[in-house]
Amino acid sequence: MSINIRPVTGVGEVVPGDDLAHLILAALTPFEDESTAALADGDIVVVTSKAVSKAEGRILRAADREEAISRQTVRAVASRQHSDGSGTTRIVENHLGLVMAAAGVDASNTAEGTILLLPQDPDASARNLRAEFRRVTRANVGVIIADSAGRAWREGVTDMAIGAAGVMVLDDMRGRPDAGGRKLSATVVAVADELAAASELVRGKADGVAAAVISGAEKWVMQQDGPGARAIVRPSETDMFRRGSAEAHADGYAAGYAAGYAAGRVR
Amino acid sequence: MSINIRPVTGVGEVVPGDDLAHLILAALTPFEDESTAALADGDIVVVTSKAVSKAEGRILRAADREEAISRQTVRAVASRQHSDGSGTTRIVENHLGLVMAAAGVDASNTAEGTILLLPQDPDASARNLRAEFRRVTRANVGVIIADSAGRAWREGVTDMAIGAAGVMVLDDMRGRPDAGGRKLSATVVAVADELAAASELVRGKADGVAAAVISGAEKWVMQQDGPGARAIVRPSETDMFRRGSAEAHADGYAAGYAAGYAAGRVR
Repeated sequence: MSINIRPVTGVGEVVPGDDLAHLILAALTPFEDESTAALADGDIVVVTSKAVSKAEGRILRAADREEAISRQTVRAVASRQHSDGSGTTRIVENHLGLVMAAAGVDASNTAEGTILLLPQDPDASARNLRAEFRRVTRANVGVIIADSAGRAWREGVTDMAIGAAGVMVLDDMRGRPDAGGRKLSATVVAVADELAAASELVRGKADGVAAAVISGAEKWVMQQDGPGARAIVRPSETDMFRRGSAEAHADGYAAGYAAGYAAGRVR
Repeated sequence: MSINIRPVTGVGEVVPGDDLAHLILAALTPFEDESTAALADGDIVVVTSKAVSKAEGRILRAADREEAISRQTVRAVASRQHSDGSGTTRIVENHLGLVMAAAGVDASNTAEGTILLLPQDPDASARNLRAEFRRVTRANVGVIIADSAGRAWREGVTDMAIGAAGVMVLDDMRGRPDAGGRKLSATVVAVADELAAASELVRGKADGVAAAVISGAEKWVMQQDGPGARAIVRPSETDMFRRGSAEAHADGYAAGYAAGYAAGRVR
C-alpha cells in the first residue's frame, strides 16, 4: 500500500543523440545484462523534460532566446516587467498547450551559452521510452516526462507531467461512492501531475538526476499508452484564467472605450 | 536517498472533539504504548484538511452552503454557470488567502446533510499536531495539512499544503550552482505542495484515509515550526491571475465605456 520513489543516479550528462532509455537502464542495472534492470511491472519511470530535450538535441544558442520563445508561443497569456529592470517575464501558451513562463524555454543546467526547448512531442517521447523499457526488461511500466512550472496564486514551482505513456493521467472518481456511501461529485485527480511532483522530491533541481522510479503506484499503470499528458491540458476556451488579469482588463477597456465613445457621440 | 510514503489506515471516522494526534498515533502504533509509534526524526505526517476540520468541529448544515461560501469569501475571483444548469462554480479567495472553488467548503466524505469548512487556522492546527506528536514520540517530525484544489490551465485537482509546521515549505535554490556550475536563476520549489501531492497518491479520495507518513524527506524538516503554508500563498496584489479573464475584461469594459462615453460627448 505504500509508494516508494528512488532517484536514478549515474546517468551523467545527456548529449544529443544519446539513447536515453539505455542510459537510464544502465544506471538502474547492477550487472551488464540490462534485462536484469531494476524495473518491475507497475513501476513508473519519471524522466526530466531536460534530459529528453538534450537527448533529442533541442538545443539553441542563448543569443536566440527571445526569438525561440516567440516561435514557441501560440498565444500570449500575461507578461510583467521585473521591478529590478532585469527584463520581462512572458507567460504564454506553447505548441503543447502548456501555459508556462518563457514558453518552457530553459537556460539552467544547460551548457554555457545554450538554451533548451521542450521536447517536440513529449507524449511521443514517453511512448518511445516506454516501448524501449518494455523491449529490454519485459516489464510493463508507465513513463512520465516531468517539467517544473509556476502556478497561479501560489509561490514557487512544482513539477507537472508534460508527457506520459501507460499512465492513467487523470483518475476520474466521479460517481464512485465516498466513505459515507455518497457519490463524489466533482473529483478528477490529476494523478500524473502528483506523480511528477512526487518524483521531483528525489530528483532535485541542481543535482542533474535525470529520472526517478516510482514503485507502488501500479493501479495507475495501464496496458495501453493512453492519451498522454496532453489530456491534462485544459483547452483555453474553457479556461477561466486564459488571459492575465491586467491584459484582460486592458482588452476590455479598449473595447469598452470604443463602444462608449461611439455611444457618447450619437447622444 | 529514496522517499517512502505510507498511508495511515485505521483512524476511522473523525468526529468533533476527537484528539486527532492520538487517533493518528494509535493507528500507527502496533502496541498500546504510543511512544513506540512508528514516527522517526525527519518523518513528515501529512493530514487531510477534512480530518482536521471534522476534529475541530467545522461542520455546518448543507442548507447553509451558499451562505457559508459567502462568509468564507474575502474576494471573488471568477465564477461560471455550469453548462448543464446545475449551478455556478464560484472561485474565490478565502480568509486563508487560498484561491479555491467554493472557498474550500466541502460536501464530500461528510455526514449526510452537512458540509465542512476549512480549518480556521491550518498552520496553527499543524503546529498543535506537531507538538503533540513530539511530546508523545519525542520525534522531530514535520506536519502538513493537505487539501485538493483545481488549478488554472490544468484539468483535475492535486493536493496542496494549506497548513504546515516544521517543514521548509519553499526551498529557495536561487544562487545555488546547477550541475554545470552556473547559478540557478529563478527556482524556488514549493516543496510542501509536492509533499502534499505525493501523499494524496496513497490516501486517495474515497478511502477515508486521514493521513500519510513520508520518510526520506528529512532535509526539509526543521527544528522550528517556521512560517507555515501561508508563505506559499502569493499575495493577490502581485498575482497576474488575481481575477478571472472574463471578470477582468468586464471590469475593463465598464471602465473603458464610461471614459469613452465622456470623451465622445465632449468631442
